[in-house]
Amino acid sequence: MSPMTADRLAYVFSCSAAALALGIAAPAAADTLVDNVQGITIDEDGKVDRFTGLWIDDDGKVKLVLKRGDQRPSGVDYLLDGKGQFVIPGMIDAHAHVLGVGFAALTLDLSDTASLAEAQAKIATYAAENPGRRWIVGTGWNQEKWGLGRFPTAAELDAVVSDRPVWLERVDGHAGWANSAAINLAGVTAASKDPAGGRIERASGSRAPSGIFVDEAMSMVAAKVPRPRPEDRDLALQEAQEIMLRNGVTAVADMGTSIEDWQSFRRAGDKGALKMRIMSYAGGVDAMELIGGPGPSPWLYNDRLRLNGVKLYLDGALGSRGAWLKQPYADDAGNVGLPSMNSSQLRNLMSRAALDKFQVAIHAIGDAANSEVLGAIEDMSGTYEGDRRWRVEHAQIVDPAELALFGKHGIIASMQPVHQTSDRTMAEARLGQGRLAGAYAWNSIADAGAPLAFGSDAPVESIDPFAGLAAAFTRTDAASQPFGGWQPQERVTREQALTAFTYGGAFAGFAEGRFGRLVEGERADFVLVDRDLLLASPEEIRATQVLQTWVGGERVYDSEEKGGSRR
Amino acid sequence: MSPMTADRLAYVFSCSAAALALGIAAPAAADTLVDNVQGITIDEDGKVDRFTGLWIDDDGKVKLVLKRGDQRPSGVDYLLDGKGQFVIPGMIDAHAHVLGVGFAALTLDLSDTASLAEAQAKIATYAAENPGRRWIVGTGWNQEKWGLGRFPTAAELDAVVSDRPVWLERVDGHAGWANSAAINLAGVTAASKDPAGGRIERASGSRAPSGIFVDEAMSMVAAKVPRPRPEDRDLALQEAQEIMLRNGVTAVADMGTSIEDWQSFRRAGDKGALKMRIMSYAGGVDAMELIGGPGPSPWLYNDRLRLNGVKLYLDGALGSRGAWLKQPYADDAGNVGLPSMNSSQLRNLMSRAALDKFQVAIHAIGDAANSEVLGAIEDMSGTYEGDRRWRVEHAQIVDPAELALFGKHGIIASMQPVHQTSDRTMAEARLGQGRLAGAYAWNSIADAGAPLAFGSDAPVESIDPFAGLAAAFTRTDAASQPFGGWQPQERVTREQALTAFTYGGAFAGFAEGRFGRLVEGERADFVLVDRDLLLASPEEIRATQVLQTWVGGERVYDSEEKGGSRR
Repeated sequence: MSPMTADRLAYVFSCSAAALALGIAAPAAADTLVDNVQGITIDEDGKVDRFTGLWIDDDGKVKLVLKRGDQRPSGVDYLLDGKGQFVIPGMIDAHAHVLGVGFAALTLDLSDTASLAEAQAKIATYAAENPGRRWIVGTGWNQEKWGLGRFPTAAELDAVVSDRPVWLERVDGHAGWANSAAINLAGVTAASKDPAGGRIERASGSRAPSGIFVDEAMSMVAAKVPRPRPEDRDLALQEAQEIMLRNGVTAVADMGTSIEDWQSFRRAGDKGALKMRIMSYAGGVDAMELIGGPGPSPWLYNDRLRLNGVKLYLDGALGSRGAWLKQPYADDAGNVGLPSMNSSQLRNLMSRAALDKFQVAIHAIGDAANSEVLGAIEDMSGTYEGDRRWRVEHAQIVDPAELALFGKHGIIASMQPVHQTSDRTMAEARLGQGRLAGAYAWNSIADAGAPLAFGSDAPVESIDPFAGLAAAFTRTDAASQPFGGWQPQERVTREQALTAFTYGGAFAGFAEGRFGRLVEGERADFVLVDRDLLLASPEEIRATQVLQTWVGGERVYDSEEKGGSRR
Repeated sequence: MSPMTADRLAYVFSCSAAALALGIAAPAAADTLVDNVQGITIDEDGKVDRFTGLWIDDDGKVKLVLKRGDQRPSGVDYLLDGKGQFVIPGMIDAHAHVLGVGFAALTLDLSDTASLAEAQAKIATYAAENPGRRWIVGTGWNQEKWGLGRFPTAAELDAVVSDRPVWLERVDGHAGWANSAAINLAGVTAASKDPAGGRIERASGSRAPSGIFVDEAMSMVAAKVPRPRPEDRDLALQEAQEIMLRNGVTAVADMGTSIEDWQSFRRAGDKGALKMRIMSYAGGVDAMELIGGPGPSPWLYNDRLRLNGVKLYLDGALGSRGAWLKQPYADDAGNVGLPSMNSSQLRNLMSRAALDKFQVAIHAIGDAANSEVLGAIEDMSGTYEGDRRWRVEHAQIVDPAELALFGKHGIIASMQPVHQTSDRTMAEARLGQGRLAGAYAWNSIADAGAPLAFGSDAPVESIDPFAGLAAAFTRTDAASQPFGGWQPQERVTREQALTAFTYGGAFAGFAEGRFGRLVEGERADFVLVDRDLLLASPEEIRATQVLQTWVGGERVYDSEEKGGSRR
């Protein structure tokens, strides 16, 4: 090193020292100013508040929330002029299946079919367009929506695809529909017995499999489907991120992460391709231990990924009558659904997770399942102290007498507003009019003092959070039905709904303070939309256009692939 | 922001701009100067070279290698005054089992026992000291070293521990020794058949299990041992790192990484506790796909971790007569050992890995196994073009007629010098004097043009690289036996040995240019030792004291827990 270089060094050091001595909080080269927006945030007190500008630092965190009249910083590198459009915090989906969303987008999707005939036509077209696929695999069908009044059959699939196996999962993931080629490959015959926790539907008047496999019986066929390869998963993750980000969803709780899913998340993180935030709940305690090891993972990739805990299943779904009820189904005398495990098994799994400080999220749909979970949490809350944030996923049908337990133990009610609007006719049929008091009881649960976290259960329902938002404060569906809302006493306010789709989802995943609100120090995750969600009608909210989505101070979706200007 | 703040900003910006305009390569705050050392490195041309100082940049990379008389930089933050001691590149162990090293250190270790009686005493003591352990698990025994002339028996274990199961793996990992409690728990009886690729040793004159389970038969008992929990693995990893670093080993190829191992590596990396570098080879193609996904992982944690490829096993070991030979064992007429898979299986697995650009490392010890691997590489080299760096692990007994194939295909010979010194008497017994020409043929393989990568196979042998270095250029053991060296024509030079333990290991793992040499731009991984490895006698080299170990410009081991001085 030459003496001249040493002199230069001395000069640079003196400058840096001077800057340090002055204690300046300088805009770094990558500081961003979002200005001229009509912003909504949840403030430090959990109240909905307004702002007009955001100063974002080099780390992608909110440095200052600016109100009308506040002086703007100079010297920032990038300015986004919102031109009077609307900014909301990034939406958080507290219950979805990330790779499921991606795979659904990449595979045959029957969720838009309105009849069996329409589904058959779509299946036939897909098979013809994909001659190279050894299996035809799809999802999204719903015989209720078709008005079929029964499950479809293998023969109805054979009529359109008989040259290779077909396996189509029901919209709720709790039943699968196979053609004869798939049933034969699975080796299922009239002599096959129902597995524990599952049911092979039989053709009427015989023991022959009808083509429908419920809950645990699904794996008899599903196990024969070629497994997706890692590159398939990576593609599905990329697709899922794109779908979520263009819907304004910046963070998601992934419910039922497998080690393969996790590795895909990490591959994306390792190469900087994880654009959104994933709070992961492993699919069972073995996956939990394999993914997290001795406890929850740290927050990785600048708060973009964490293994929070475990997702357990206690029952199935209402649609396939797998939900576990206290009294028999109104439309299926003698059937109360079925639990996936007994009380001891549930408590053992909860203990195994809680011992190592993993968060526990339990799928419970029927009132018997919810009762069992609430009882288990009641039993365990003395042993596992501290801030546990037990989660009940769905909590669809709760015995009204037990609602208070949600508040007593601060149990997170992770609910999906659109399920209510999709399910209402079916729920009335399954339960009868007299047993709806604790159904999708968002307001009652909130009144009991439980934190709400809203989500979509995508790909079971669309990921669209604006549909969920509208449903949450109206109890009406996309067609604004029924008039006045279904069981309207269970509406929540617009502000509660927005909170449950933002801060509520972050709190449910131990992420409060990191993201979920647009306040100083939190990650700058926000969405630029074209209307005011606090003023728009439900119909208008459902039609919200996402203009831009930003995560950690970076624009990750732009409806025009442009916007903002360099200074 | 106040106007005053804006002024301050302008001042800082002008300083930074000035520094940029001058184009200064300034020492950053964390630059380090290592000075006053007698350094050895492998230079850009692969030659051994000398230096006296190292300038290390803020990223922990070598900025400049300084010779006597070169001007030293001023303005660096930290100075290590070597006080005339010796610096060598960090040693790289091209074949070890990282968690195995840790677990061996944490479990009963019989590798220092010189007789069966001594082993029995040690087992009894360990059992008495660990009353809470449900199983007594250990490793390291070697009936050859005991001069027993046969395997030990279950009865000999029962004599010291009968209240709980005992399972002790042989030093080479190719056989296990169980007591009666363990055999009973495993359900092995006189009626049990040998599994494919394995052998249950039988008591003389009967079919009753003797207590020894060879190769694939080991899992009959091993599967009953409670699996280590993630926290056990993390502790073992920490222990292994400490052992390696205090031995001057800064990087290692982990041969046979499981997903559980990998997760432990990542947990350490995620929390900044990965102090050394691990080049990982998954234990089989399923683990490879699960860990790496569609291909090798990126280099993670500043070149501290990468999944390079897969480790496959083609045969067992000489000691347990599991190595696959072209002619029967000289001391076991009719037995040629056994391959773990057939030719098609081997090629299928190699293809599955190579298709996705994973590196393939194949364990081959006997001459039949080496012949099979060399033939498979010969067959595949046309299909899988480019820089594949096929690796043969051990390559202990090679048909002299086939040595040239190593050079022809640039096959990496990953060999462990100390194996030769430990094995020589046993190898003579197993092969007979007439079949030793291609045994541990380091020099012949190097002469054929193959890159050498040396390692230890720890915990099979000690991780100590200085023992390996001395063995490599002497063919003598720790007692300097035999005089003049065993098959001394297969010695390599001291410089070749040092290269094979540094640059050779990096090259074998596609890490050249990242670490392995002390040259500009590579990671500053080095070891401060108390003697000159290019001048010291073999005895002196074996007694080398590691004073400090540095990885990426950070001191990670210090024999005195001090040293250096802050400027």
